Amino acid sequence: MPSTDSFEDLGLLSPGPAGSPVEAATGDAAYVRAMLDAEAALTRAQAALGLAPATAAEAVTAAAAETGRYDVRDLALRARSGGNPVIPLVADLTAAVAERDRQAVAHVHRGATSQDILDTATMLVAARTLEPVLADLGRTADALARLAAEHRDTPIAGRTLTQHAVPTTFGLKAVGWRSLVLDSHERLAAVRAALPAQLGGAAGTLAAFHAFAEADGTTADPDPDPDPGPDLGLRLLAGYAAETGLSEPTLPWHTLRTPVADLGGALAFTAGALGKLAADVLLLSRTEIGELGEGSGGGSSAMPHKANPVRATLIAAAARQVPALASVLYAGLAAEDERPAGAWHAEWQPLRQALRLVGGAARDAAELAEGLRVHPHRMRDNLDATDGLITSERLAAVLAALIGRGEARKALSRASRHAVEQGMELDEALREEPGIAGALPQDRLRELTDPTQYAGSAGALMDRALRRTGAARNRSDEASDADGAGQPRTGRWP
Amino acid sequence: MPSTDSFEDLGLLSPGPAGSPVEAATGDAAYVRAMLDAEAALTRAQAALGLAPATAAEAVTAAAAETGRYDVRDLALRARSGGNPVIPLVADLTAAVAERDRQAVAHVHRGATSQDILDTATMLVAARTLEPVLADLGRTADALARLAAEHRDTPIAGRTLTQHAVPTTFGLKAVGWRSLVLDSHERLAAVRAALPAQLGGAAGTLAAFHAFAEADGTTADPDPDPDPGPDLGLRLLAGYAAETGLSEPTLPWHTLRTPVADLGGALAFTAGALGKLAADVLLLSRTEIGELGEGSGGGSSAMPHKANPVRATLIAAAARQVPALASVLYAGLAAEDERPAGAWHAEWQPLRQALRLVGGAARDAAELAEGLRVHPHRMRDNLDATDGLITSERLAAVLAALIGRGEARKALSRASRHAVEQGMELDEALREEPGIAGALPQDRLRELTDPTQYAGSAGALMDRALRRTGAARNRSDEASDADGAGQPRTGRWP
Amino acid sequence: MPSTDSFEDLGLLSPGPAGSPVEAATGDAAYVRAMLDAEAALTRAQAALGLAPATAAEAVTAAAAETGRYDVRDLALRARSGGNPVIPLVADLTAAVAERDRQAVAHVHRGATSQDILDTATMLVAARTLEPVLADLGRTADALARLAAEHRDTPIAGRTLTQHAVPTTFGLKAVGWRSLVLDSHERLAAVRAALPAQLGGAAGTLAAFHAFAEADGTTADPDPDPDPGPDLGLRLLAGYAAETGLSEPTLPWHTLRTPVADLGGALAFTAGALGKLAADVLLLSRTEIGELGEGSGGGSSAMPHKANPVRATLIAAAARQVPALASVLYAGLAAEDERPAGAWHAEWQPLRQALRLVGGAARDAAELAEGLRVHPHRMRDNLDATDGLITSERLAAVLAALIGRGEARKALSRASRHAVEQGMELDEALREEPGIAGALPQDRLRELTDPTQYAGSAGALMDRALRRTGAARNRSDEASDADGAGQPRTGRWP
Amino acid sequence: MPSTDSFEDLGLLSPGPAGSPVEAATGDAAYVRAMLDAEAALTRAQAALGLAPATAAEAVTAAAAETGRYDVRDLALRARSGGNPVIPLVADLTAAVAERDRQAVAHVHRGATSQDILDTATMLVAARTLEPVLADLGRTADALARLAAEHRDTPIAGRTLTQHAVPTTFGLKAVGWRSLVLDSHERLAAVRAALPAQLGGAAGTLAAFHAFAEADGTTADPDPDPDPGPDLGLRLLAGYAAETGLSEPTLPWHTLRTPVADLGGALAFTAGALGKLAADVLLLSRTEIGELGEGSGGGSSAMPHKANPVRATLIAAAARQVPALASVLYAGLAAEDERPAGAWHAEWQPLRQALRLVGGAARDAAELAEGLRVHPHRMRDNLDATDGLITSERLAAVLAALIGRGEARKALSRASRHAVEQGMELDEALREEPGIAGALPQDRLRELTDPTQYAGSAGALMDRALRRTGAARNRSDEASDADGAGQPRTGRWP
Repeated sequence: MPSTDSFEDLGLLSPGPAGSPVEAATGDAAYVRAMLDAEAALTRAQAALGLAPATAAEAVTAAAAETGRYDVRDLALRARSGGNPVIPLVADLTAAVAERDRQAVAHVHRGATSQDILDTATMLVAARTLEPVLADLGRTADALARLAAEHRDTPIAGRTLTQHAVPTTFGLKAVGWRSLVLDSHERLAAVRAALPAQLGGAAGTLAAFHAFAEADGTTADPDPDPDPGPDLGLRLLAGYAAETGLSEPTLPWHTLRTPVADLGGALAFTAGALGKLAADVLLLSRTEIGELGEGSGGGSSAMPHKANPVRATLIAAAARQVPALASVLYAGLAAEDERPAGAWHAEWQPLRQALRLVGGAARDAAELAEGLRVHPHRMRDNLDATDGLITSERLAAVLAALIGRGEARKALSRASRHAVEQGMELDEALREEPGIAGALPQDRLRELTDPTQYAGSAGALMDRALRRTGAARNRSDEASDADGAGQPRTGRWP
Repeated sequence: MPSTDSFEDLGLLSPGPAGSPVEAATGDAAYVRAMLDAEAALTRAQAALGLAPATAAEAVTAAAAETGRYDVRDLALRARSGGNPVIPLVADLTAAVAERDRQAVAHVHRGATSQDILDTATMLVAARTLEPVLADLGRTADALARLAAEHRDTPIAGRTLTQHAVPTTFGLKAVGWRSLVLDSHERLAAVRAALPAQLGGAAGTLAAFHAFAEADGTTADPDPDPDPGPDLGLRLLAGYAAETGLSEPTLPWHTLRTPVADLGGALAFTAGALGKLAADVLLLSRTEIGELGEGSGGGSSAMPHKANPVRATLIAAAARQVPALASVLYAGLAAEDERPAGAWHAEWQPLRQALRLVGGAARDAAELAEGLRVHPHRMRDNLDATDGLITSERLAAVLAALIGRGEARKALSRASRHAVEQGMELDEALREEPGIAGALPQDRLRELTDPTQYAGSAGALMDRALRRTGAARNRSDEASDADGAGQPRTGRWP
Repeated sequence: MPSTDSFEDLGLLSPGPAGSPVEAATGDAAYVRAMLDAEAALTRAQAALGLAPATAAEAVTAAAAETGRYDVRDLALRARSGGNPVIPLVADLTAAVAERDRQAVAHVHRGATSQDILDTATMLVAARTLEPVLADLGRTADALARLAAEHRDTPIAGRTLTQHAVPTTFGLKAVGWRSLVLDSHERLAAVRAALPAQLGGAAGTLAAFHAFAEADGTTADPDPDPDPGPDLGLRLLAGYAAETGLSEPTLPWHTLRTPVADLGGALAFTAGALGKLAADVLLLSRTEIGELGEGSGGGSSAMPHKANPVRATLIAAAARQVPALASVLYAGLAAEDERPAGAWHAEWQPLRQALRLVGGAARDAAELAEGLRVHPHRMRDNLDATDGLITSERLAAVLAALIGRGEARKALSRASRHAVEQGMELDEALREEPGIAGALPQDRLRELTDPTQYAGSAGALMDRALRRTGAARNRSDEASDADGAGQPRTGRWP
Repeated sequence: MPSTDSFEDLGLLSPGPAGSPVEAATGDAAYVRAMLDAEAALTRAQAALGLAPATAAEAVTAAAAETGRYDVRDLALRARSGGNPVIPLVADLTAAVAERDRQAVAHVHRGATSQDILDTATMLVAARTLEPVLADLGRTADALARLAAEHRDTPIAGRTLTQHAVPTTFGLKAVGWRSLVLDSHERLAAVRAALPAQLGGAAGTLAAFHAFAEADGTTADPDPDPDPGPDLGLRLLAGYAAETGLSEPTLPWHTLRTPVADLGGALAFTAGALGKLAADVLLLSRTEIGELGEGSGGGSSAMPHKANPVRATLIAAAARQVPALASVLYAGLAAEDERPAGAWHAEWQPLRQALRLVGGAARDAAELAEGLRVHPHRMRDNLDATDGLITSERLAAVLAALIGRGEARKALSRASRHAVEQGMELDEALREEPGIAGALPQDRLRELTDPTQYAGSAGALMDRALRRTGAARNRSDEASDADGAGQPRTGRWP
């Protein structure tokens, strides 16, 4: 029962991600779990190289698994002193290990720096979070593909700069939304597949691991594994990455923030891409337009007739926030020294918030796409709103060939004005133009002003775009196909 | 005890504000409390105008005071359906009122729209949050004033584009930091004093209040209070604002987002202004410079010699985030219609996060300023790092008057190069320049190359700046002096 | 005639500000002119204090007035070496002075640093640019006031989350736009009135002026003017500010960037505020809605029926850019040392671009507001689009009083569904509800469902808001009323 | 000779890109040239399909090549009316074609919309601009590789949170910078290889091309090329893309802004990545640190001793701007309808400015890296600044093994404090600790406190990172290796 001065963010201001798997995967407890996973992976990797006893690896792994004993709020408060949560967590983990195996205490966090653990944990959180996000993007793409196929030839007004331009099809619109969803899926899947573990020690040289090996007399490895290399630090880095299930980085990346910047960019992309779908749904479901409707619109107690496009609204809200958050992450690339005083700390909340917003938006997009109600008759009615003027481009082309460009344009302008002023159909007004009535029989005129017969290549474009199968392909192959530079990866996301 | 898939943000990634009054004042529970305060104020204001029975106002106020009975997480989850947390909160409040007074149920949230309540609550949260922020800025300004006064004439290298330029004083630096703190205080105090209540009903016309009055037959107010006006809606707006303790707005501002944009700007300003202090402290406490040190540096278990400037680091991290969050709030001004689909929802978390980051930074700045260790001897040592070259501007001026500009520059360049190459003091090298040795006696030369004797107007500037008493003045007068356009205000921040 | 590889930005991608006074006031040539003004002001201020001969002040002023002799492109290219354009400009100015008065050469730029000149020039450019911006905002506010007054009672659908909610008036919408324009005007006028001159010398101590006075033997001022203070630097600062017509700052602000941050905030505010007007115009002029139209819509050669809302489009484009530019300026507050390596340079283009975009948007807004075509009949038609459902809030209130809340809601829901399904008017459907037909006579039912009779306090709110006269008041009084802390100012914007 | 109220941006405020190939490639004239290239490509592609006479293609191509006849400023001013520069350009191009071939006039811009031309032109400008950018990144990477190899084992203090942590090597720092440069190169090369042509006609259906074919009777293509498809629009799209040398898009992307968003992200990445190099150079060349120096520092006339790191300063300035510009481009993904009213127009200047800033930063980075002066003796001096404390991590490890963790930590703390207070070397202080003097012989103690003997895996990491050959590989292979989804591409950048 929260007291009135509780400080928690429980999702009250985040209806997008509230209650989603993404929200759970990015909570403070998920970060603590990932930090503990990183600590355990480090001790195990050291044990595998003979740098720690196997019993220590077991003790640390077991103590790290007792997530219930770590008090997240207490860690948050103790994080203030040193500026990050790893320092108090290591103290608590050490105490937990001590209860199991006093000898193992010396092997907790041995040789690591706080950033090794928090960066690795952040990558684990991102990897675990992107799983449901990618799945929701796949659902969205599938639902949009069905909508597109179903409405391959459903005519709808093409609108530019808010005005009717020429007709298009709803199928082409839907497949366009889908192409952005697939683009998002590709970018996120590629970033996810490359997420690296972090290990560098105090300043990125892995020197402490050498120092401990030297102190313990374990340097002289009797039978060193020649691959990935004889250097102790490199072997440890490879083993640690394998234990975490993340990629092995070429270099410690304490201040080479490519993974974080790439995440920021792909998340901003996805938020914007889903924002396109939302922007169109919001417009097309306006009271006066009414071509689309959300499956289950949000109601209003005071106004029983209202059905608000809530899913699209929440997606649009995310699309307004994530680009700004990503700008903080891109700016963080310019991180000084071997650990920056501020740029690193400034990444934590924006990255988490970007993951949450995109996760919420992806779920909302899936629900939106799967439940979208399409009203072809309203599309048809709106196409007629300009009484045929929406086909004027076609008429101008045909008439120019018949009576010359200048004459065609003049006649068309006169007839258009006439049609608007008199509230008549364009083909009627055109029949009153002497030059035209002679050149075009009435049937042909009606055909040329029929807004349902002027879709150009819409169908062919849609068919081609529908053949793209990005999300499906990526969903199965992402571990291998986005892999960079022959890096070893286990593809195991714990 | 949080489970491993808990979703809460408990401050783990926010060591800046963790545990601060600002964190508590901006938690989800604080928002719920503020929303309940707004609901109670609305019913009370209606009762005061005869639009509701006094017993209803009492029942709603009492039910709203039982903050323990509202389950924040449950509200967050139920907020998804309609896209905001007011809808489920009204349901729970109604149930609570029903337990006390069945007749009062009809007067819960009567005539209001969700945005009325959430916007008013946000302003209440901001007002309550800015109180400790302003206090911390006042503490920071006071501490910096003491530092400045104490070090009025302490010489320190003036640095431009990373290089020593000419000497300045630490007092002038400190009073400069203070002037930015006072600027921040003024801007935040002015914004806080203007924070308005929100009331407009479904589309900003207050029409529902008329409808209920009409339905209840209460329109014909027998003895209307002539001030602030005979219109029912305007009288209600005034009464409601008074009940909340917030300013009365000229218009409902559902899509006139001046208050939110102004908050965003003042918060970005403050984060940036404190970021200047942090940037300087971070540089001046670098190992090689060592002129400043945080009172209680964050330690490192692995490296016992380290004392990290943690407070400055966390301030710097805030300064990197808030401008981007403010950009979302400024962009939100372009909100369409009478309630936008996305722009409003996109304000919530960035505004809360900006309040938290600035609150954390203000507390960190106060601790930093109050505990700052100043090392005048290191400042003196560093002034000598260029062996007198830091005074070359002065020498150039004096020599130009004696031997001509061109000749002076040449002699100075030769001597500078000579001093650098030979590792000698500049005055020694200059004595070897024949033109100079004759023109300037040795004592005068030593005086001219003394970096502690070239502070220009630093003292006079500092004295003048120190007489500015913005924060103190504002702290007592802020309610009145930043008040806009003769708006009635009670100045009561509940 | 530009060659194909010319580098100039001639406005091709900036149709908003192209050809406007603001564009001219912010061109590179305007910056050069302002830098020359700053240099001349500095020498004149020194002469007034006896620090330079009057003839030198005359020579520098005359040479600076020959703007034609400074080759802007050549300056730009030579700026690369030192990183700013003042260094080459001083060289060229010195050459121009030498042609007039060889003795005056020593008094060009004497004692100043590049930043003194460029910062002062930037403030002059801002002051000169904001003049037409404020005038255009005044025009916009006036036109909107006329529209509001004319349409005080014109009913229009209030729209929330894209759906019709309850009726409002076009007058209330227009006066809301105006209130944001007045808010913008107030913020920009206040910032403009406070724009300060910059003078600090190499590191902000004004020391070089003392050095030159010492070298020249002019320190011992026989009869020092006791006000504003006996310190030479402070007297020079006051005199220099007066010569430029800018405010006198309390401190040199090389790295106390309040003026730039405040400009950024006020410009982002204005862009966003005008963006609200644009967002509404863009929606209300959509083909299906048609309630508004731009006076002279942009045509399309291929589609003769199209009239695009070009002014609103360009304003909307500005509103999307300026908040991000302002975030760069706010971030620039965290500027290290006495001159930062990057943060200062990063201000130049974003500030200029923000001025240009806002200037273009203000002009476009004035044209838009002055030419806006309002179509009350389309507003009326759209109000009827929901066949009376837009008044359901009112009906619910009245019916609840008559037949109880629960019963009223049920009857209303049934009738609403019935009306939608059968395509009948709501009042007809309600008449078929037995409980209602008895409770409400037919005339009363028709009255209650009349969307033109449910504007609540719209008129009273509009009347009150219309009495606000911000822009007019500010236009005449801005020099005095926004003045800070008793700073001396001449109010002369050269 | 610019007049005082000229509006041009001639680079005065952009010393980064001023005078660079990138500046020329992104000037307004370059955009005009690219728009003309797009127009000519369109007519040629139509001619190739029999949709226009070959003579028309020749006439348009020839008229488009006369770039000198198009007045850029006049186009800019005329662009205001319709909101984009294509409309007036088509008029001027038509006039130029008419002088050559009156029959060809009808085939100018036939079937296209303004956005087809401006989007294609923007992609051409980006492709042409990225060429020198990629080359400069290649130069930078090569220079950094040389620096790294040369200083593989040069010890330097590793610094975290502004404080000395443990030693590292300059080679590892340099190879880290290089890895970010290679990451940038990969991202920009991949984006460049995918830049697509744009063709969709009024609303993205290519319908006008069908209409003209129908009007001309050319629909019934007697011998249609079966690949890439029988649809006229798709064949035209393929032909047009081939004529421009850009990729063929799957769909018209008027409101599917993947190419622009991807450009924005890759540019923000590059600016941030180069900003890391700049941040480190700025810190390491500070007067007190002095480990690095720019090859040709910017001088100061007043202060002859100063050598400012101008190149690094300008890079840092770019790194502060581009992320914010990219946030505008990401936000532009949420573009409504078939052409948005504002989001499209808001892309133009931010994208151009981002290209320019990154182009300038890449050139500055190449100059910086190629000219960087490295001062190993200053690195060595600074390593000694803490009198051996920088090795305390190693000592703690070794001592812990000898005398236990707790005892080791206590002794080390005492000795560290003692060393700092007495100004003695750490190894001396340690010799006074009884527990240590017995455990470690003096020679071993000196070895353990030697900061040049504690680089851990620095060398091995650097060697591995140096083997990465991204930029070189990409430079030759970029056309093929970053190609997406089997799209046909000619790889010809005209």
